[in-house]
Amino acid sequence: MEKQKPRTLSGFMELSPVRQVQFDRMVALLRETYSLYGFTPLDTPLIEASEVLLAKGGGETEKQIYRFTKGDTDLSLRFDLTVPLAKYAALYHDQLTFPFRRFQIGKVYRGERAQRGRFREFYQADIDIIGDGALDIINEAEIPSIIYKVFTALGLNRFKIRLNNRKVLGGLFAILGLTEQAGDVMRTIDKLEKIGGEKVASLLTEEYGIAPDAVKKLLSILACNDPMVALQGFKGENELFDTGVEELGTVVKYLSAFGVPESHFMVDLTIARGLDYYTGTVYETVLLDHPNVGSICSGGRYDNLAGYYTDRPLPGVGISIGLTRLFFVLEDQGYLNDDLLTAPADVLILPMTEELAPAISLATRLRAQGIRAQLYCEQKKFKQKIAYADKLGIPFVLFLGEDEISQGLVTVKHLATGGQTSCPEAEAVEQIRTVCAQRAQGTPIREKE
Amino acid sequence: MEKQKPRTLSGFMELSPVRQVQFDRMVALLRETYSLYGFTPLDTPLIEASEVLLAKGGGETEKQIYRFTKGDTDLSLRFDLTVPLAKYAALYHDQLTFPFRRFQIGKVYRGERAQRGRFREFYQADIDIIGDGALDIINEAEIPSIIYKVFTALGLNRFKIRLNNRKVLGGLFAILGLTEQAGDVMRTIDKLEKIGGEKVASLLTEEYGIAPDAVKKLLSILACNDPMVALQGFKGENELFDTGVEELGTVVKYLSAFGVPESHFMVDLTIARGLDYYTGTVYETVLLDHPNVGSICSGGRYDNLAGYYTDRPLPGVGISIGLTRLFFVLEDQGYLNDDLLTAPADVLILPMTEELAPAISLATRLRAQGIRAQLYCEQKKFKQKIAYADKLGIPFVLFLGEDEISQGLVTVKHLATGGQTSCPEAEAVEQIRTVCAQRAQGTPIREKE
Repeated sequence: MEKQKPRTLSGFMELSPVRQVQFDRMVALLRETYSLYGFTPLDTPLIEASEVLLAKGGGETEKQIYRFTKGDTDLSLRFDLTVPLAKYAALYHDQLTFPFRRFQIGKVYRGERAQRGRFREFYQADIDIIGDGALDIINEAEIPSIIYKVFTALGLNRFKIRLNNRKVLGGLFAILGLTEQAGDVMRTIDKLEKIGGEKVASLLTEEYGIAPDAVKKLLSILACNDPMVALQGFKGENELFDTGVEELGTVVKYLSAFGVPESHFMVDLTIARGLDYYTGTVYETVLLDHPNVGSICSGGRYDNLAGYYTDRPLPGVGISIGLTRLFFVLEDQGYLNDDLLTAPADVLILPMTEELAPAISLATRLRAQGIRAQLYCEQKKFKQKIAYADKLGIPFVLFLGEDEISQGLVTVKHLATGGQTSCPEAEAVEQIRTVCAQRAQGTPIREKE
Repeated sequence: MEKQKPRTLSGFMELSPVRQVQFDRMVALLRETYSLYGFTPLDTPLIEASEVLLAKGGGETEKQIYRFTKGDTDLSLRFDLTVPLAKYAALYHDQLTFPFRRFQIGKVYRGERAQRGRFREFYQADIDIIGDGALDIINEAEIPSIIYKVFTALGLNRFKIRLNNRKVLGGLFAILGLTEQAGDVMRTIDKLEKIGGEKVASLLTEEYGIAPDAVKKLLSILACNDPMVALQGFKGENELFDTGVEELGTVVKYLSAFGVPESHFMVDLTIARGLDYYTGTVYETVLLDHPNVGSICSGGRYDNLAGYYTDRPLPGVGISIGLTRLFFVLEDQGYLNDDLLTAPADVLILPMTEELAPAISLATRLRAQGIRAQLYCEQKKFKQKIAYADKLGIPFVLFLGEDEISQGLVTVKHLATGGQTSCPEAEAVEQIRTVCAQRAQGTPIREKE
């Protein structure tokens, strides 16, 4: 029979069993954390009718979309989890209770140029809070606390959440007469950290013909150590600006009650998250030791989630974690905590008798007590059986021979120590439980010193 | 702005928040149960290169496949989880440890004609045990115990696992001289329950020209109350048959040690699971009260998982649950246990003061203790705030006003009873914990009396 060479498409992550366990553990922690904040899980199809999915117009994403026909239906794979949410909220509006808080962790598809660390199929982990007509500012203050809790639960500590408010930016540009050039200005000030204030100033004046006075004022605000103080100087000049400053103040004010330490957030007037869509608070999250990775969790407040589906204004606030890329970076940096158990079982049972019923019954009893037990009955040499447990990282091997059966004992071997004892089953269970509980201590991510 | 009517494609399940929680709870139980038996999670791409995915030839499935090109790559969406497993096992053979036990719960795609209860995108929940060159019969005996454990964990009790062995069937057909007509015979005896023995006999003789003597022998075996006894009469006539009877005997023998009660399995010589692929034990699982649903969990032993990718024989045994269809049936039959908590939160916190910091801090403390807490700060009337908790099924509302704050208390309202008390926070936490723990008792499925 002619063979087809097996391969996995480039840009599609496929993990080893050990890595998969580590990935799944992160997903479980995300689910748990989102649940603590009152979010409900959602799952939507990966395929949508193209006219529905692309109703908004895909913009730059449109070229990347996996789009095809089946029969005479024009279909597309989702490229994010926001458009499916918009569809869901518009379609089931009358059955939903608002504010509607949902999390969704699922795969999305973008036909980007494949390169190291870029994926065409990747998981996003999103949360959104959707209001019906209105949504209180307190929700915008709560989001950073969820970001903080999620990453610390995973084991990250050296990160910072950056906050800004689009109304502040919009108002400031209006005050400085830069509204029409907002895009150019944003793109240029985004380079502040890289090329410094002087170069940004000359770019703004020379390249974009912006008045030196406006540039000076703008850069003085951006250079200020405490942006909230710097902003005070412009109050009373523009309504949008004043609202934005008040909102930003409220968000910052409540962050400590929400449990976010001052070390983990900062107001950063240079972040905007694109020019459309977001209308209030915006968020980015950066790894302090890996700024080149970019934001690992971003989002913001928007006034109209589903304007292309419904007349009802559905304002909301949400964030997204690019989970596949984050996992890739963590693995690449050696940040995955390999001390946590990744074995498929807690114990491997080796029957030493021809009659297998006693060993099978033992496995059945262990499983009933919540111990992950695997029977090994393949025709192999003893050494190979032990090697099987060893390779998979299964912490314990249980032997059950004639002697053990007649004496009502089991022989337990703890592979990490090599220690081996014969003891009653209950004692073995206790030992396995204790060691496995220890091996469950710790977070999935371990930052390097 | 012109609106696009939002819709979800037909054949694509999209659940309400309450149903999604119930679905996810079932998935969590499946994961947990599979883990008890030493299976490791796997996740593979939804998209594969068409020449890889269709290397085996899709057969009847091929027309149903979602196939398209992106750039100049010919792509297909997976239509089951077995072919991706075969690819994975062949591709990563040298890094894997065999027997390789993996579970995978994921979406697959088949462009079937859309009709009630038929899905084009649906979850399969698969487990497989793959050997490298050989795999002991004991693995075939273990599978029914996993089926039994999974369904009882979910809350199903009125089901039966049907077992057969393809070697028995093949051998029997050889003995009776029916090998060439095996397909016709299988399809016909499949109708036994529906049309009865006499009609099957006349179909076999008249339609297919099978010798009356062979038909008589065949039907006498099938009619026997204890098929294992009936099979004894043919022993020694055909080697394949003898091996099959021995295997079937071993599987049945060990089922009680594996914890499967006799009430929940039977040998059924009429099941075959198609004519290719399976080579040993085969399984079907039927709901006693809903036989028309067909098998809710099927599979079997195969000798060669990945013959179209590799020369290495990779024998295995596996089963698959069509989770989306099962969930549809359960919902349709009113079998979902609606008493289990499906609310997005355990408690809704209503701040009664303008200053929100005390309420926010309360939420933060509750979450740190593992209580799912949602803050409600929207500008709504008191009644509407309570109605919000009520609609979502959130069991408790906590009020925090000036009085409570100054006295260091919280006011707890238990919506189910209407009971309301002011008490210290720790007492409220205890009350919430107790009620939510009660509401977590029980299985996701509740069969009707």
